[in-house]
Amino acid sequence: MSDTPHGWATREPVGRIAYVNGRYLPHARAAVHIEDRGLQFADAIYEVVGVVGGEFLDEEEHLDRLQRSVGEIGMAMPMGRAALKLITREMARRNRVRDGLIYFQVTRGAVRRDHAVSDSPPRPTLIVTARNLDPNQTEQRREKGIAVITRPDERWARCDIKSTALLPNILAKTAARKAGAFEAWLLDDDGFVTEGASTSAWIVTKEGRVVTRDLSNAILPGVTRRIILEAAAEGQITVEERKFTLDEALAAKEAFITAATLGATPVVTIDGHTIGDGMPGPIARRIQELYRHAAETAARAKPSAP
Amino acid sequence: MSDTPHGWATREPVGRIAYVNGRYLPHARAAVHIEDRGLQFADAIYEVVGVVGGEFLDEEEHLDRLQRSVGEIGMAMPMGRAALKLITREMARRNRVRDGLIYFQVTRGAVRRDHAVSDSPPRPTLIVTARNLDPNQTEQRREKGIAVITRPDERWARCDIKSTALLPNILAKTAARKAGAFEAWLLDDDGFVTEGASTSAWIVTKEGRVVTRDLSNAILPGVTRRIILEAAAEGQITVEERKFTLDEALAAKEAFITAATLGATPVVTIDGHTIGDGMPGPIARRIQELYRHAAETAARAKPSAP
Repeated sequence: MSDTPHGWATREPVGRIAYVNGRYLPHARAAVHIEDRGLQFADAIYEVVGVVGGEFLDEEEHLDRLQRSVGEIGMAMPMGRAALKLITREMARRNRVRDGLIYFQVTRGAVRRDHAVSDSPPRPTLIVTARNLDPNQTEQRREKGIAVITRPDERWARCDIKSTALLPNILAKTAARKAGAFEAWLLDDDGFVTEGASTSAWIVTKEGRVVTRDLSNAILPGVTRRIILEAAAEGQITVEERKFTLDEALAAKEAFITAATLGATPVVTIDGHTIGDGMPGPIARRIQELYRHAAETAARAKPSAP
Repeated sequence: MSDTPHGWATREPVGRIAYVNGRYLPHARAAVHIEDRGLQFADAIYEVVGVVGGEFLDEEEHLDRLQRSVGEIGMAMPMGRAALKLITREMARRNRVRDGLIYFQVTRGAVRRDHAVSDSPPRPTLIVTARNLDPNQTEQRREKGIAVITRPDERWARCDIKSTALLPNILAKTAARKAGAFEAWLLDDDGFVTEGASTSAWIVTKEGRVVTRDLSNAILPGVTRRIILEAAAEGQITVEERKFTLDEALAAKEAFITAATLGATPVVTIDGHTIGDGMPGPIARRIQELYRHAAETAARAKPSAP
């Protein structure tokens, strides 16, 4: 492996560091073996933790979900919670991340290719990367609102597992981007919205009730989704966890998406149809305020970082 | 990246060579960047070509399918057909493969993580590995027959694309192995068998007709499947391409699986129920003879290798 296997990596910030299996490495040189099961079989789980003002958003919940997904596919966590949190902080520090994200990927490790997992599987691979995001861009997206298209939900039956078998997701997301949209909402066989390609989907009914799909194998149990459900309840906003159709979404007063790195971001068009008055609505804005407040409260309640 | 990132790789045959992006490397040191889209998104296609007695089985058909799958996800082939075939031969030669397989994987390349494929995507990653298989083991499996279990088909809607988003497949295959079986047959929502986790599924009816599922998005268009369909027709065996249920399979006179590295291998139990008299049957054996004959004829018809 050469020092800079790919030209693009040399355009990364000077000094960008990645973590792979116990080592902190220059990002451009960070690699996994070609027979890593993550690469050959999508036999891997990932997680993304948002960083705002140096604070890790909903960190415990994301690590809980990582652990749950890893367990659902019969894998062991590569290390304990305290060690993972130390790596998280070291990665934020080394990469000078104040507003951005930490990305975790756990694979079933490198071993001679065989579909079946062996009785004595290899050591899992742990990859951690960190990067800054432009907070102005996120803020502008929330100010202007985003466009959404819809696509058939072609994903597998266990979307509650946050695996890297993301090919259907990236095809939907790419179709959205080609159509000038930011996200694709996925429709199940009965015409109900499941979720976005990488975000949770929400609408606000004419009566001002907030609706998002109930948890099942059909959607990822969004961490931001859960925090927002709690924040909305505290803010006296009525929330219904149930399926909704594309027609109901098109007739909604407002719509929005949520994700760790986005908070609540308003949707202003779906498949080219204007939602509400075509402007970010007051309830999405209020939800974002409640979410931000919840995050700040949680940050203040935390013991100071080691 | 250290020279031997994983202990297992040091147990590979001395001198095992892998091909990655234009370079022939010691297998243990062959790696891809951690932001390769194959690793992060299963944004990748693979193909396996069997090698028997130094001949590449159905090579053109496998490369056709590779090209088709790559096109279905909007990717470009990393190089032309002639160059791929040269690498195939060079890999077989360097790894002294006479009876085994060549594995190809094409990913959408390494680039800063973003679900959507960019308008100017990176250069695709091409990985090729080669290894010998024990022909006695394959033969013994055909002599004894194999056990199959059934599992719900939890895969995505485009199983006709040979992508590396194989997590559902490997979970089913692992369940089979834990149950002492060799393969898992996947059942769709209506109780019909789609295919095996990594093989095509076939039964022989009481009337001696051979049945395998018709092509659709629900199954991979098996190359060995197609060659066997043709060989069976030439051998005056009646074949029906249609769905069959688990009940029909349990009542079948014979059953078998096919794959590039297996040929036609008899199934003697399904979910613990004996198929036919519990022994490999004459029609599966005849199909394997016809398949072998077709392969030999094709090999003789080929111009000699460069």
